[in-house]
Order: sequence, then structure tokens, then C-alpha cells
Amino acid sequence: MGMLVKYHLYAPGPVEIPPEVLNEMSKPIFHHRTSQFSEVLVNAWEGLKYIFQTKEHVYILASSGTGAMNAAVENTLSEGDKVIVLSFGKFGERWEKIAKAYNLNVVTIRKDYGYCVEPEEVEEVLRSNPDAKAVLLQHSETSTGVSSDLKEISKVVSKTEAMLIVDGITSVGCDEVKMDKWGIDVLIAGSQKSFMIPPGLSFISLSYKAKKYMEKSNLPKFYFNLKEEEKALSDKTTAWTPGITLIMALNKSIELMKKEGLENVIKRHRVVSEAIREGVKALGLKLFCKYRLFSNAVTAVEVPQGIDGNQIPKIMRNKYGTEIAGGQGSMKGQIFRLGHLGYVDKGDVVVMLQSLEFTLRDLGYKFEPGLSLSIANKVLMEKYEF
Amino acid sequence: MGMLVKYHLYAPGPVEIPPEVLNEMSKPIFHHRTSQFSEVLVNAWEGLKYIFQTKEHVYILASSGTGAMNAAVENTLSEGDKVIVLSFGKFGERWEKIAKAYNLNVVTIRKDYGYCVEPEEVEEVLRSNPDAKAVLLQHSETSTGVSSDLKEISKVVSKTEAMLIVDGITSVGCDEVKMDKWGIDVLIAGSQKSFMIPPGLSFISLSYKAKKYMEKSNLPKFYFNLKEEEKALSDKTTAWTPGITLIMALNKSIELMKKEGLENVIKRHRVVSEAIREGVKALGLKLFCKYRLFSNAVTAVEVPQGIDGNQIPKIMRNKYGTEIAGGQGSMKGQIFRLGHLGYVDKGDVVVMLQSLEFTLRDLGYKFEPGLSLSIANKVLMEKYEF
Repeated sequence: MGMLVKYHLYAPGPVEIPPEVLNEMSKPIFHHRTSQFSEVLVNAWEGLKYIFQTKEHVYILASSGTGAMNAAVENTLSEGDKVIVLSFGKFGERWEKIAKAYNLNVVTIRKDYGYCVEPEEVEEVLRSNPDAKAVLLQHSETSTGVSSDLKEISKVVSKTEAMLIVDGITSVGCDEVKMDKWGIDVLIAGSQKSFMIPPGLSFISLSYKAKKYMEKSNLPKFYFNLKEEEKALSDKTTAWTPGITLIMALNKSIELMKKEGLENVIKRHRVVSEAIREGVKALGLKLFCKYRLFSNAVTAVEVPQGIDGNQIPKIMRNKYGTEIAGGQGSMKGQIFRLGHLGYVDKGDVVVMLQSLEFTLRDLGYKFEPGLSLSIANKVLMEKYEF
Repeated sequence: MGMLVKYHLYAPGPVEIPPEVLNEMSKPIFHHRTSQFSEVLVNAWEGLKYIFQTKEHVYILASSGTGAMNAAVENTLSEGDKVIVLSFGKFGERWEKIAKAYNLNVVTIRKDYGYCVEPEEVEEVLRSNPDAKAVLLQHSETSTGVSSDLKEISKVVSKTEAMLIVDGITSVGCDEVKMDKWGIDVLIAGSQKSFMIPPGLSFISLSYKAKKYMEKSNLPKFYFNLKEEEKALSDKTTAWTPGITLIMALNKSIELMKKEGLENVIKRHRVVSEAIREGVKALGLKLFCKYRLFSNAVTAVEVPQGIDGNQIPKIMRNKYGTEIAGGQGSMKGQIFRLGHLGYVDKGDVVVMLQSLEFTLRDLGYKFEPGLSLSIANKVLMEKYEF
């Protein structure tokens, strides 16, 4: 038994919860078929529009983010529809699995982990597949730390009949995502990411174009049937039992995000992730992302030669109180992932790098002690705005 | 309005409260004249003995630490008694004020701020004042960051008829204080320091020798009359209304301290304070303490030439979310004080130095950015035990 070690949750979700939000969640619960709850719900709907940068309604589902991915597919597509999946990580593969579970005709553009599909390639595949009904992609691929060029891909897809269905689970609220302006048709987010509340809620919004698709959609659905939610909407309620306390928490979180300003929230994530990348590079480590765009939510780092990669998250958690993520699937042991989204500020950067240095030292990796902290701090000193 | 800045309380008290303790304080209150509360109280008494390193009873008072200083004087001394005050800071001056308020015959050995009285000097003054009834001192002088050589002073005073009355408010629980072994006669502590709970409780313990003095004490007293507390003791209760919720919190805090182990708790404070001192020196700043012993609780730093010292705590709080303390009395604007006691770990060191660097940069002070973090982290890497 050693000295006090505080716990820090630096996974790419769930993330730490601000004290103001924890307080909100400790309020007494009340019933959801009441005007009291309607007020909470309407407030949450309005707040989500601000974060999603949309005039469309944002549905709140009692599910994890995967539930909203499922909802996106079953509500907008129909039997045998052709969809194009841009797959460059574990979550791209999840799009493929969902589409296949509904027997859709899946065309996949696959990229090696760490890389991404370019907008020109999307243009080309849409040209050769004019019957495609949708393009499915991750804005930020949580498994690799790669960000896709959503803005440019949106331009390409907007010009066609196909919908652009975007998993923004680790990008909405921490990276620039302009749903209406860019012409995203279906946008998805999850509560335990930039929203800084516990897992249990997912959010989904549909453009006018996607709603037209929804009218015709004939895939089997029940719990996630957004038409049922649409009906409940006019009564200021939800189709099924809503996550009452989580929605109260959501309102408090969005209040905090509004106070900071969405632009600042996003800029903060950009600066924090840059500081962490520079810190990591100062240790002589290699970033796993080889693409030109990095996720603002998570940094994937290659495990250096001769180090047991599975030990890194273990030691960081068990010995140094810092919860990060390892690699998923075939990346297990090959990379580790530093989450830096949601409730993170300048201080978290140095706390995270400190634990990383301690861990690498334990594993016999050679580096200049303290350098990652001072390099990262220089980035923060220059770019963090107060 | 800038980016998110988390609040960190790095004053030399009050200090941050662990989440486990906050949870404890959110439990429903109950009445204090019950067996339920007696159980809580007895538990707290036992816990305090462990932290005070004594077999004597430790009284819990509903007051700030100054209340316990007041109680120490009025319960053990009598009209016209001669007392020797070792005064080397604002809190030494408080001892003088209290003693004078009771019209005691006060002999002061005064040292300039930043210095301390040596055990040999105490020996000398006791020799020339054989009628002295008590020596009053601070173990850790919170206003200057100086630690007295309590262990050696204890040896000197133990040999005489005088009591050693020690303000251990910022040392008990973060520095070595062995009440019984060293022969301290009256030892005082406060809740909002190493005990990691809010202000509102003070603790005081008396040796056999001090209790003998208490029998004869004829100074006027009521609220802090420890004989009343002594009577209540056998009923497992307190003379007056106790701070119920704070005592529940205290038990949780002591549970955490026991889990870590008192030895580790103290070692942690020693390592953290050394890391901070090394970080501060790496910035080219001078420590205010010129004595051979440093407080484990607080580091006082001289404001460098040409910098407005009053701005340092202001900017650290208002812009960087880091609450530290300025100088007191004539030291205002001349020094600033970094608190590092209680709920602090390795990460707090770099978070604190980061905000200090940001602040000094704003004030135009020249230094090598990031160096304090990396130097401090080297100390932690070498000495923090996990």
C-alpha cells in the first residue's frame, strides 16, 4: 500500500463528470408523464440543437451510442438498400455489422487502421454506385484516433441522392460539426462523451432529406422507431420511459457548455489534443494516426518496441490511478489510447502525461523525464485561452 | 469568457475534500443525543488518537483552530502565569495575543519572519525563567512556511516543569508529530487541514502533566471548559451540540488516512512539498523560509523584484482556477503561499506549478517555460511511493 493516488478517468468515454452535474443527479427523481418533466425535456431538446448546430429536432434515446447507430439504419433505410460504409476502424466495422444485420447491400471502402478515406474516394464510389442510399461513416474513429474530413465528405455526398449518416459519438461537442451548414443527414452522439454525463443516452437528428427516407423506410423496428418519438414530440414527451435523471444532468452539462461557448469548447479540445500529441512525441513515441486529421477526443499511440503494450493501461490504472484505453481487436497490445474529451482542462494534460511517464519508466522505456510535461505545457501556454 | 478552467483549492487550508467524504456529508443528519451518534463519536475519538499518536483523549470542539488555541490557554493556565511564546510568524503572534487577553505574563522569543527559534534558545530561556508554566509554539508556521524543530524542543521542555503547548494545526497529519513519544503536553489540530474536511472542528489533547495543570487552572471559561467535556465523555457524548455531519466526515477521512497509513500520509506530504520547492527554485524564485526545516503543508515564496505580488494569488484564482494564499500582515505582496496538504497527490504538484507558470508569464517574469513541471516531476518520480 503506497501513497494517495487520485483517480482520473481519461478514457475516450465515459469521461469525468463535473461536480455541478453530479449535484444535479443527486436531486430527487420525479415522474416523467408530468409538465415538470416536459419542461426538462424541451430544455434538453433545445440545448441539443445548439450542440448539433441544427434547426432539426434531436431525439433523445435511452440507449448507448450503438443504439442510435442501430436507429439510424433501421429508421432511414429499406430492404435491400445499397449503403456505402467508409470503414477505417472498429467503429466503421460496426456500421458494416449493423447494415448487414438488416440484410442491406453493403459496399465498403476499407482503409488500414490509422488511415482514412479521402473525400475524392467517396466521390468516386458514389459515381460508380449511383443507386447508393447512404454513406455511413465515423467523424472521429475512436479506435484509431483518426478524424475523417467530414466537412469535405459532406460536400461530396450532399450533391447526390444518398444520405450522409454520421457517427459523431466522439466528435459532436469536441470537434467542429455543423449539421445544417455542411448538410449532414443523420447525426448521432452519446451522453458519456463530450456531454460529460454517464452512459445511457444517445442523440440522433435527421435532416429533411433523411426524414423523406424515413417515410419510406420498411425495415422492422419497434423500440427505436423514431415515428413513435415524433408522435410523442407534440405532447412534449417521449415514446418510452426516458432517462429522467440523465436528461436533468444533460441540461446542466449543456448549460456549462453554453457558458463556455461551443466555439471555446471545441477550441479547448483542439488545444488539449495538440498538447497531448506534442507531449507524446517528446517521449519519442509514435502517433498511430497517419492521416492528416487527428481526433480531438482521443490520441492513439504506438507501443514502442520491446514494451508489453497490454501493461500500459494496466499500470496506468492500477498503480497511477489514470484510466486510459488499450487497443481494440487486432490493435490490442499494439497501441494505447489517451482520451481527452469532455471535462478536461489544461491541468489534465500534465496529469495524464505524468502518469504516462511514470508507467513508461516502470516498463524500462528510455526517455527524458519531465520533457513531455514541459513540451505540452508550452503548447498550452501559447494556445489555451482564458 | 475563455475555455474551461477547473477549480483547485491549494490554500494552506481549507483544502479539497475527497469525494468519499463529500458523499459521507450528504447522508441524512440525525440527532446527537442518541446511541447512533455515540458510536460515531467514539469512532472519531479513536481515530484522532491514531493521528495524534497518543493514548490520551482527543477532545473534539465545534470551533475553528483558534478556538482550540484559546481552549489550550484557558484550560491549563492560571491568573498571572508566566508563559514563553516562541513567535516567528502571524500565528506565533496569535499565541501572544491570546495569552495577553488572559493577562498572562508573556515572555516572547521573537524571530524574524522566515526564521525560527532553535531548541538551544528555548533551553536558555527556560533556564532564565524557571517559573514559566508553558512554552507555546507553532510546529508549522503557516504564515511563513517554516517548521520548528518540535522534536528537539520537546526534549528541552520535557525536562522542566513547563508544559509544551503546540499548535499543530498545519502539521498534525502531514508532518511527524509524536505526542506521547516526544512528550508534547497540549496538541491542537483543525479539521480543514490534513483532515480534509470543512472548517468547523478543532481537536485538542492534553498529556497527564497538562491535566494536572488543568485541575488547578482558574482562568474564566465556559464554552471551551474541557472539564465539561470530560464529564460528557463517560456518557459518550459532548458537552455542547457537536458538529454532527463534520464528525461523520472526519471518520471517513480518518478511514482514508488509515488506509494509506499515517507513515505514508506524512511521507507523501514530505515528497510533495519537496517537489514543489524544487519546482519553485527551477523558476528562479526564492523560498521565504530561511530556516533549516520546511513546513510540509505550505511553501512560502518571495515575490520576485518588479512583480506586483498581490497580483499573483489574484491571477492564479481568477484566471487559472488555482486558489493559493498571499502573504499575511507585513508580508502582504512580498510573498505568496502554495498550500499542499491534505487531499493532494502527485498530479496536484504539476497542476499547481502549471498555473504558477501561467501567472508569472502574464506578469512578465522571465523563466524557462515548463521547467518547474519537469524538475518537480523528477522528484516525484524518484520519491513518490506507489
